[in-house]
Amino acid sequence: MSLGTEEKHAQTMANTLAEADYRGRYRHGLTSLEMILEDVDIGACRPDYKPKILKETPAIAWVDGAMNLGPVVGNFCMDIAIKKAKEVGIGWVTCKHSNDYGLSTCYALRAYNVGFIGFACSNSPAMVVPTRGKKPVLGPNPICLAAPSKREEEGVIMDMTTSTVDWAEIDQYKIKGQELPKGWAATKDGTETTDISQATYLLPLGGTEDRSGYKGYNFILMVEILCGILGGGKFGPYVKETHSARDPANLCHTFFALDPAKFNPAFKLHMQDLTAALRSTDSVTPDTPVWIAGDPERMHMKAVKEAGGIRYSKKNLQTFEEIAFKYGVTPLKAKDSCYFPS
Amino acid sequence: MSLGTEEKHAQTMANTLAEADYRGRYRHGLTSLEMILEDVDIGACRPDYKPKILKETPAIAWVDGAMNLGPVVGNFCMDIAIKKAKEVGIGWVTCKHSNDYGLSTCYALRAYNVGFIGFACSNSPAMVVPTRGKKPVLGPNPICLAAPSKREEEGVIMDMTTSTVDWAEIDQYKIKGQELPKGWAATKDGTETTDISQATYLLPLGGTEDRSGYKGYNFILMVEILCGILGGGKFGPYVKETHSARDPANLCHTFFALDPAKFNPAFKLHMQDLTAALRSTDSVTPDTPVWIAGDPERMHMKAVKEAGGIRYSKKNLQTFEEIAFKYGVTPLKAKDSCYFPS
Repeated sequence: MSLGTEEKHAQTMANTLAEADYRGRYRHGLTSLEMILEDVDIGACRPDYKPKILKETPAIAWVDGAMNLGPVVGNFCMDIAIKKAKEVGIGWVTCKHSNDYGLSTCYALRAYNVGFIGFACSNSPAMVVPTRGKKPVLGPNPICLAAPSKREEEGVIMDMTTSTVDWAEIDQYKIKGQELPKGWAATKDGTETTDISQATYLLPLGGTEDRSGYKGYNFILMVEILCGILGGGKFGPYVKETHSARDPANLCHTFFALDPAKFNPAFKLHMQDLTAALRSTDSVTPDTPVWIAGDPERMHMKAVKEAGGIRYSKKNLQTFEEIAFKYGVTPLKAKDSCYFPS
Repeated sequence: MSLGTEEKHAQTMANTLAEADYRGRYRHGLTSLEMILEDVDIGACRPDYKPKILKETPAIAWVDGAMNLGPVVGNFCMDIAIKKAKEVGIGWVTCKHSNDYGLSTCYALRAYNVGFIGFACSNSPAMVVPTRGKKPVLGPNPICLAAPSKREEEGVIMDMTTSTVDWAEIDQYKIKGQELPKGWAATKDGTETTDISQATYLLPLGGTEDRSGYKGYNFILMVEILCGILGGGKFGPYVKETHSARDPANLCHTFFALDPAKFNPAFKLHMQDLTAALRSTDSVTPDTPVWIAGDPERMHMKAVKEAGGIRYSKKNLQTFEEIAFKYGVTPLKAKDSCYFPS
């Protein structure tokens, strides 16, 4: 708000960051605040502009995000999708002129929370090499599907990048000085590497061609087509890590909400049956059971509740304090000693 | 038709099989005819029943495939999706009570051929172990997205199972007596194996957990939710290779068609730009360039045209002849010596 952001938009942004930390997805949480504020400062992100619908029918909408904060654009789009899904069973919304929207889960959950299937995906800066390629042409484009079950805790909430891992995971190995697993990264010449000092680009899910890495490349491309190309913003090799007002991110997202009651009336019951079958599958490693997507986040949320709050590292808290000082707002107050789970 | 199939349905079935062979996707081609006829013989497949819409809105439809041939159900659904997409930008159709629909490409192409994005996916018999799991709970559920470009030969047509490979590929290794690449198969206890004699189940794309195999598991689950659960037919562990009238396949498929002209007006131009960027990326192996999904099929179709027809092995032709004799129809005539490309 001290940057001229409307109160409700600032609230949306704060909620999205907190939700990511609550779920243990720290990369999309409060630690990204500094970068977002920088984008607002230089005018690459314009919280004073208003997202608007460019074209629509009862089932779809094409949205101009107007360079607003990613979460503001994301909620704007998903809320349109949910409204349309209530009327005609599906609402499909694709936008351009957006910024990094953080954790995809936040948007899919809006649909999930009203009993719908929710879907969100986004393009992102090019850092993944296509199968056989020497240079990155596509981003580690995230994709999320949330599907409710009869019992809330048995719904599926999958949220992942379409590369094998993202840079944050590689950075963890860098800190630990460990060798990377195969299939994660490529050298500056596009060759698979496990040497952290040589890791320059990401590999698509699957890794190398003999392990069907081209299928991961296909999933990345699918997201790029449904976002950058359908949305009409930047796409593929043209999406860069810029942080420049002259060259705004112009990211594209696609969302849909789907009302399962317009199809199988027993949808939620069948979801419960399927997820129970998955969870009760005998495990190869008995101390780590078979999960369904969303379980690791549920465990983290439980730990947060038990601890009475989200834990951050001292370094993070110091950064938050510096930010608060810079913008003249009250800093976050830590309850006790904090740590940042790795 | 000698089995009581309507002429147009028999034609649909024949076209779908021929299209798969033409594209070099032999597993879904004429060699599967014997199995299909067997299903019709025992009444697990009922070409005399008529698919019908159970519920619909201007944007979606829930269809009962009435146990008809998979391609008949598939075309019925996709044609509804295209009609709705023409009116409201998207048509989403999910069906139950279907049979194996063969090559997903066939349905996505119907949308692609009128300038739309086409999507098709299906559930399938459980033979993939979830991450950490000892037993298979999900199928190698195929997924297909076709997106047109300004120049026909630059459109993306991706069609793949969500397991690393399917059984046909493992069988190829069995014939050659070669060791399997890692990430393809698991033993009867769910452990990754490269020993062909131990390969019992399939692994999801990505393979083991350290290579993000859980993301492949998520994609399989995504298809299962959008097909088996949304469709209300068999799902997950309940989908078996049965060939039994008492226990029909009851497979579910989901299709959508999306009119890109309702979004970015430069969609096809941007598709051309993106695919050109991918194809012109320098390759790690100069004799094998960077492809886009659909390129291997295009090369096969070119070879078929140059050869003046699809080539089959002598063994296949003999089977076709036996089938023709059994049902009292004229057998296929081979033009010259045939072979079956591996």
